[in-house]
Order: sequence, then C-alpha cells, then structure tokens
Amino acid sequence: MEWLTEQEQATWRAFLAATTLLEDHLDRQLQRDAGMPHMYYALLSTLSETPGRRMRMTDLAERTKITRSRLSHAVARLEGNGWLRRESCPTDRRSQVCVLTDAGYEELVRTAPGHVAAVRAAIFDRLTPEQTALLGEISRIIADGLHQPQGADLPWLR
Amino acid sequence: MEWLTEQEQATWRAFLAATTLLEDHLDRQLQRDAGMPHMYYALLSTLSETPGRRMRMTDLAERTKITRSRLSHAVARLEGNGWLRRESCPTDRRSQVCVLTDAGYEELVRTAPGHVAAVRAAIFDRLTPEQTALLGEISRIIADGLHQPQGADLPWLR
Repeated sequence: MEWLTEQEQATWRAFLAATTLLEDHLDRQLQRDAGMPHMYYALLSTLSETPGRRMRMTDLAERTKITRSRLSHAVARLEGNGWLRRESCPTDRRSQVCVLTDAGYEELVRTAPGHVAAVRAAIFDRLTPEQTALLGEISRIIADGLHQPQGADLPWLR
Repeated sequence: MEWLTEQEQATWRAFLAATTLLEDHLDRQLQRDAGMPHMYYALLSTLSETPGRRMRMTDLAERTKITRSRLSHAVARLEGNGWLRRESCPTDRRSQVCVLTDAGYEELVRTAPGHVAAVRAAIFDRLTPEQTALLGEISRIIADGLHQPQGADLPWLR
C-alpha cells in the first residue's frame, strides 16, 4: 500500500477545495440567475451546439457524463419548463431524442452571458494561457483514464 | 461580453468531464467499499488529522467547504453509525465540537487503503510530478479566488 506523497496530498486537498467551491459557486449563480442547477444548464448548452439542437438521450448522457436516470429526471423537469422536448428517434424506435425548444434556446441566450462571466471570473481571468492549456491537458488525462477501468460502470451505461 | 476562447472552452469542457467522472468514480468506490459517499469520508479523514481527532463544527464545515446544514445532516448520519460524536465546546457554549470515535477511526483505517489506491490510480499514477505540482498550483489559484468575491455567500457561512 502506497500512500500519497506530501506533494500529492497537498495537490489533492487543493483540488478538492477548488472543485467543491467552484461547483457550489456556479450552482448558486445559475440558481439565482436562471432558476436551474449547473447540470441543467450543461444540458441546454450541450444541445445548443449540435446540428438541429437535438441529441439522442444516450448520447446526451454520455456527453454530460451522467447516469441515464439522472438525465431522465432532469429532462422531465426541463420539459416542464418548455425548454426541452422528447421525440422518438426516427432511425431507432427504441431510443428517444432530446430537442432544445426555441424557448429553451432563448433562455440559454438570456443566461449564458452571466454564466460565462462567472466561469471567466472564477477560472480563466486568474490563469495564464499556459496554465489554462495545462489544466486542459491534465483534465484530459484524468478523464481518459476514468473511461477505461470503469468499463460498464460508466455513469451513462448504468 | 467576452466569450471563452477556443482554448478556454476546450479546457472548461475537459475539466467538467474530469471532475464529473472523478466524483462519480470515487463516490461509487466509497459506497461500495465503505457504505458512505465521498463527502462523509472527507469528514472522517479531516478529523483524523487533527489533535484529539476533534474540531468545532463551524471549522469542520469551513475545512471541507460545505454548508452548515449539509454538515449537520452528514454528522447526524455518521453519529448513527457510531463513527462520530458531538460534544458541546468547552470554551464556547454556543458551539459544538465534532469528535471522531475509536470506531470511526478504525473504519477509516479499514477503508483508507482502498480509497487512496483509487485516488492514486485515477490521478497521481497518470500525472508526472510536474503536472501534480501544477495541478496543485492551479487549484490553489481557483480556490483562493472563490474565497473573495463570494464573501458571506461561502458555503460554511450560509
């Protein structure tokens, strides 16, 4: 059994503090300004960038790294707001497609500037371009690694 | 309104993917091996490193970056397991002290090797010492920044 080195421990503590504070901060910002948690915003934003503003539910879960049940729950809520709509998939009858409505797109257009400003103020205004590039590189290493050992335990496959 | 550059966007997406997958992975690992979520483990682990394995509730909330109500709820659950105990503070009658019991310490000793191995496999085995140092530095910049503008909105002051 190998424990963490002092440097690894210091990094781990700082990383947990940063991610916990950041998630709390962005969640509060979006709840206040858009009445939705960060994860709901991520769904709208992800859909807005796809052709036709639509995506299969299974692909949307994979893209946002959440479980299918968590996605279903969120989509039902956002459908209630009129921001999303579910349709059956034209090419695969067993799966559903999630569509960003015009109202959902307008909500995103209204709330994106405030959210982007919050992300910028919390992260990118504080980092040099080199640090930004390195944070991306390190994040990709961690995310890639977590796609492998988990196998079928990945959130969107559960 | 300044949008994110392409590099910032790529970093932000990778960071969100990495942190979402990591939190899910460690939560699952701890639920499976210790029957508790990551945040509960963080409370036991934080207390284990203090003199007398005890801390004021307010300090524990600040150290773990969570709200007082979330902490109260978690402590009540962990008290139910016999892993924590609340005592009134000898120097300040209005505040409470949270104490890690011997049973809680033993539970931590039993589950720490598996958890540390999971953290190591997910992060530190994949990063060079330079990347580990940089991740710590970047995390500290983000965490420090979030302590300032939020002011009284910090989780443990709500």
